[in-house]
Amino acid sequence: MSQHKISPDSPIGIFDSGIGGLTVVKAVQACLPAERIIYFGDTARVPYGPKSQVTIRRYAREDTEILLKHQPKMIIVACNTVSALALDVVEQTAGDIPVIGVLKAGAELAARRTRSGKIGVIGTQATILSNAYACAINEENREFEVVSKACPLFVPLAEEGFIDHPATRLVAEEYLSGIAGSEIDTLVLGCTHYPILRRVIEQITGPGISIIDSAEAVAGKARELLSAQGMLNPGTGKALPHLMVSDLPQKFRELYRLFMGTELPDVELVGI
Amino acid sequence: MSQHKISPDSPIGIFDSGIGGLTVVKAVQACLPAERIIYFGDTARVPYGPKSQVTIRRYAREDTEILLKHQPKMIIVACNTVSALALDVVEQTAGDIPVIGVLKAGAELAARRTRSGKIGVIGTQATILSNAYACAINEENREFEVVSKACPLFVPLAEEGFIDHPATRLVAEEYLSGIAGSEIDTLVLGCTHYPILRRVIEQITGPGISIIDSAEAVAGKARELLSAQGMLNPGTGKALPHLMVSDLPQKFRELYRLFMGTELPDVELVGI
Repeated sequence: MSQHKISPDSPIGIFDSGIGGLTVVKAVQACLPAERIIYFGDTARVPYGPKSQVTIRRYAREDTEILLKHQPKMIIVACNTVSALALDVVEQTAGDIPVIGVLKAGAELAARRTRSGKIGVIGTQATILSNAYACAINEENREFEVVSKACPLFVPLAEEGFIDHPATRLVAEEYLSGIAGSEIDTLVLGCTHYPILRRVIEQITGPGISIIDSAEAVAGKARELLSAQGMLNPGTGKALPHLMVSDLPQKFRELYRLFMGTELPDVELVGI
Repeated sequence: MSQHKISPDSPIGIFDSGIGGLTVVKAVQACLPAERIIYFGDTARVPYGPKSQVTIRRYAREDTEILLKHQPKMIIVACNTVSALALDVVEQTAGDIPVIGVLKAGAELAARRTRSGKIGVIGTQATILSNAYACAINEENREFEVVSKACPLFVPLAEEGFIDHPATRLVAEEYLSGIAGSEIDTLVLGCTHYPILRRVIEQITGPGISIIDSAEAVAGKARELLSAQGMLNPGTGKALPHLMVSDLPQKFRELYRLFMGTELPDVELVGI
């Protein structure tokens, strides 16, 4: 796995269980406009969140192998579930290609941002049950207190486009009222879909709580790392991302527009 | 595929994309208590609804092959998506084993039940876009008018246990107000999860609209067919279903209780 010829012109590989990782693509494009991006979304097997750890680890290896065929200079794990339960599998599979995950990036940024030392984390069932955000935050500072809450309906609500719907507000109140009342000053959006619902989340948490978008956090970390390694792309071009998916769902075009705010470019269908 | 030794004592095979088909297991148990049931839920690849037809057809063949290893005397397709888009694949794979699907059974019962000839159908995006319920109903009577509506949030709401939640009511109002006001007298629950939300659905549709549960419909059809073929199990025992899944999700025990109202028996994990 270490036979890759990598250079500053090599692409950044990003994968996710589905289309949610497009929020990471968008954040990387904003932060590193000259970089080429290759994205794999495992749309045939989405969602990973409710699945078992054994299955998630197998999928993580297969997803990494798909990206490695394109000789990336870095792999970003946009999937919080994989970051929580299988980052080591991605690292082993990637060999000497650096791997960064949304989870650790979000945890680090939250630890830098908090003043009270009390941090909230929301995510899928699997991410929250894994306790991985709490562990990663406590690696930064073991005094910090983490309050977590799984919000399983946020992904389907975002994908249904119920962005401003009163039902979404009721669900968000149900999920967030406890955590918002627990004196946290920082809330990590521990799922790539959640930035889509950021406004309704902020309405409930209020101005006193700083929102950490893990997609933005991981994009910032990618820039730091590439810069330190002298691997930033020197070009000035702005290429469309190379998109690969394992299935082309009927709503894909609509979802791409929802996540990226632009029209869908060409998409490559890959077998898994 | 036609080498099976089948007898009245052979099991009824039932499969679904996930755990939703347990509503069919429950209906078959109620209707045919002496029958042995073997169930496969493709929990590693659920949901099928948003996936492409090519992928759904491949999954349907693989799911059928898993059941065939247990020499069933009949296969019930509990998955509306597969019934809509890939029933022919199941029939081809099953050879001379009879195959019945929830979709046709629900359509037939709705066609018998309606008086006004105006029938509503709700289901997943894929089921509704396929137009398969409308086609099946019009095969019964081409004068009947069908009004359809996709309700993608009902599955996650049911699985989250938001049975009586005000958010579920708001979502149901959003989805059903148009269809309930369109003079239908019959509404088909075209997704195996929807019986879980039957009460909130009935509150919106009101007493003038007769609800057709496709799970009950397919169980009734299975009894008719087995009886006509002299293949009813003569036993009086009441066995637990033999459950097979392709993944063991963390919430499986809880979901089983939600769907079946009883504790989870042993489960076999099968590779796909």
